[in-house]
Amino acid sequence: MNAPPPVHLRPEIQPRKTPAALMEALKARFAERCSTALVVREQHGRDESSFASPPPAAVVFAESTADVADILKLASQYNVPVIPFGVGTSLEGHLLAVQGGISIDMGRMNRVLAIHAEDLTVTVQPGVTRKQLNEAVKSTGLFFPIDPGADATLGGMCATRASGTNAVRYGTMRENVLALEVVTASGEVIRTGTRAKKSSAGYDLTRLMVGSEGTLGVITEVTVKLYPLPEAVAAAVCSFPSIEAAVRTTIDIIQLGVPIARVELIDANSVRMVNAHSKLSLREEPMLLMEFHGSPTGVKEQSELVQELANGHGGHAFEWANTPEERTRLWTARHNAYFAAVQSRPGCRVISTDTCVPISRLADCLLDSITEADASGIPYFLVGHVGDGNFHFGYLIDPTKPEEREVAEALNHQLVSRALRLEGTCSGEHGVGLHKMDFLVTETGDGAVNMMRTIKRALDPKNIMNPGKIFLL
Amino acid sequence: MNAPPPVHLRPEIQPRKTPAALMEALKARFAERCSTALVVREQHGRDESSFASPPPAAVVFAESTADVADILKLASQYNVPVIPFGVGTSLEGHLLAVQGGISIDMGRMNRVLAIHAEDLTVTVQPGVTRKQLNEAVKSTGLFFPIDPGADATLGGMCATRASGTNAVRYGTMRENVLALEVVTASGEVIRTGTRAKKSSAGYDLTRLMVGSEGTLGVITEVTVKLYPLPEAVAAAVCSFPSIEAAVRTTIDIIQLGVPIARVELIDANSVRMVNAHSKLSLREEPMLLMEFHGSPTGVKEQSELVQELANGHGGHAFEWANTPEERTRLWTARHNAYFAAVQSRPGCRVISTDTCVPISRLADCLLDSITEADASGIPYFLVGHVGDGNFHFGYLIDPTKPEEREVAEALNHQLVSRALRLEGTCSGEHGVGLHKMDFLVTETGDGAVNMMRTIKRALDPKNIMNPGKIFLL
Repeated sequence: MNAPPPVHLRPEIQPRKTPAALMEALKARFAERCSTALVVREQHGRDESSFASPPPAAVVFAESTADVADILKLASQYNVPVIPFGVGTSLEGHLLAVQGGISIDMGRMNRVLAIHAEDLTVTVQPGVTRKQLNEAVKSTGLFFPIDPGADATLGGMCATRASGTNAVRYGTMRENVLALEVVTASGEVIRTGTRAKKSSAGYDLTRLMVGSEGTLGVITEVTVKLYPLPEAVAAAVCSFPSIEAAVRTTIDIIQLGVPIARVELIDANSVRMVNAHSKLSLREEPMLLMEFHGSPTGVKEQSELVQELANGHGGHAFEWANTPEERTRLWTARHNAYFAAVQSRPGCRVISTDTCVPISRLADCLLDSITEADASGIPYFLVGHVGDGNFHFGYLIDPTKPEEREVAEALNHQLVSRALRLEGTCSGEHGVGLHKMDFLVTETGDGAVNMMRTIKRALDPKNIMNPGKIFLL
Repeated sequence: MNAPPPVHLRPEIQPRKTPAALMEALKARFAERCSTALVVREQHGRDESSFASPPPAAVVFAESTADVADILKLASQYNVPVIPFGVGTSLEGHLLAVQGGISIDMGRMNRVLAIHAEDLTVTVQPGVTRKQLNEAVKSTGLFFPIDPGADATLGGMCATRASGTNAVRYGTMRENVLALEVVTASGEVIRTGTRAKKSSAGYDLTRLMVGSEGTLGVITEVTVKLYPLPEAVAAAVCSFPSIEAAVRTTIDIIQLGVPIARVELIDANSVRMVNAHSKLSLREEPMLLMEFHGSPTGVKEQSELVQELANGHGGHAFEWANTPEERTRLWTARHNAYFAAVQSRPGCRVISTDTCVPISRLADCLLDSITEADASGIPYFLVGHVGDGNFHFGYLIDPTKPEEREVAEALNHQLVSRALRLEGTCSGEHGVGLHKMDFLVTETGDGAVNMMRTIKRALDPKNIMNPGKIFLL
């Protein structure tokens, strides 16, 4: 077990100085919207990752694209990093000021700008959260499906190429962002697309920005697709004698092309934690949490077929959640799995894995990793967007015990190596951040990472856009 | 009516010289696979666009990634352009050697490398055509849905971000390419992704290459998604009293979220041409050609709903094509519309438009453009992937009459301006090529095009990758 050292502690990474003249200029331009209070800086200098770093030198609360452009112009002039901040739910250290600099809080840019129900699109400011968005479009009969566990901002979800439980049917941010407004490293404002559903007009700058983790530009406006609320929805829980049985059922569902809207694996550990946290009494066995969208007969057909497939693998206790309230309770429990787990070991930090493999490799990838995790003695939970081949171990480590971190990182390392051997990826939806830089090189090779570096250097020659994330220059 | 001059005739565009030493090196490396025969060069120096340009200096028939890498290394050494060639069906002048150089014929790299039916993926060489691919995977019960009119190569379809009739349900190349192998301008071979269905691992190089029209790298391997053949398929033709009625029906279908697999508009001109070309007897009125995929009851539900919507707009004569043979005949006729039109005016060239607008704007965009086309006196046909808001006028011009080209280009200009005002794009699926450079700037603004230029300069500093396409440096 030889985990690599946390990348942000490598000696070549040094915070840059923030010149007093820059701070004066920011204060002059933004007055009380530029904060240097320690508590504010600390709040903006961490995320849900297990990493720690000195906080940013200041936090500026942006209220407009012009604000962001002005911050970037000043940062460029003084050669100081900027880090866009949404609500702080990154799991990979994206928000840490490892090279110093200014945090731009995007939270006040939280207006829904234009709901085009007639075109199934909506344009929002980047600080709008996914729940806020769905609340805003509720009366139109449409919804936005992408749902990472946290109530993240649309800007943050773009930046990390987020997905969640509905991705198996509706795709990820990659498939659902139509256009962005972006402020570049020099403070220029550009638009990357239109509201047309498809386009072959030039390089796909939208998708270059989606997943770029704040390293190529600051996203100041987001246009995404919406979907009609399905005529009928049914959710079900099915328990299985083993994780393997649940996974084999999932593989069958996908290979048969069942248009299932959600199929989530939850291991027995997670069920225990969720029961305790959300006052539920789910059977403490591995389970699939599923949802079917369509016409009433379509939903019936899908769910009958899936029950049959589950039965074939020993699934039992297919329980239905038929009312919207029951479904909300169930999915809220699923979305709270992460926080339920954190609560189960007071004071712990979570080291989260995020591998994603081709669906036929899912059982191979998961089962050996479970054996390793069980043998390690580190408490953990396992949840997965298994319909996409994506799953997360959360190792609950005591941050005061370096040996626990080391064991957890070694488990992660073994898991990623296995996923890459099986033609998968080190990150399905969380991003690379600080945590997966070495894995990225292993996965894509030096050539591809060097191409990313070349693009980064060209678009951000002073390396001020969230530097030290994804790769080191 | 003031159409811009064809961009490849601008004085700043001059073919570069091909040094004798490069030709000797290519001959030494590729022997008879490097051709300088005029007929071969001419065949590789044109496409389905109405533009003409002197042919490339040589054509090299690549048989492996190593071949392509060697060509690129030599081209880079001698600072000479390279233009990848699939089957020559570009509509926008992508293949024209406007700055001279070497055409790389990818047609011999036509092996299907790995069918992973269990993961719904397939990996092919770039010279595989879409029909060849579907033939190769037929026995697995899967299919690849993207179908531009021509039997294009997968490499070419990646390069132009192609789509076609199934995109309304299955997405375009943007959504369906998982990973690429690419040879860069310096001759390096990189991989842009894995077979995982989703990933947040670094910049989305796959989608940067998809739609880059050969200007950033030569695609040497393509991994795409496959889909289970639907349990039930039904196709229908419905005639309408007017194009507006057909379009309003389409808008209703999309806004209601009907998961229709295909919904194609064909105007009365096209029907006449197709009838003549394909020996059919379709009613010579505007029509929608539709296809429904799903379970038998799902298909029944969808088609009943769509019939109701069509009736509401005066649609009549819903005719079903129930057998695979009838369907193939119908869709072959649709795919042949372009060639049927060419045949209808012997010796003509087609100037094809490709605007795509948000669905609610479709009627506005189409109807005024039809009035203008009718008034112009230029023969034309109109077909559209209207479920996506994308449609094509094909103006059939006599290439010996410059005034006809001028009128057609002016019509196109007015149409694109209208589409952009309606928040659409100048190109839904054909690409920018030579033809839409000015439109691209109008659509995205100087900032975005300059960002594209910056990326291009960084990845291809000698500007040897299909130079003079998308934008001028």
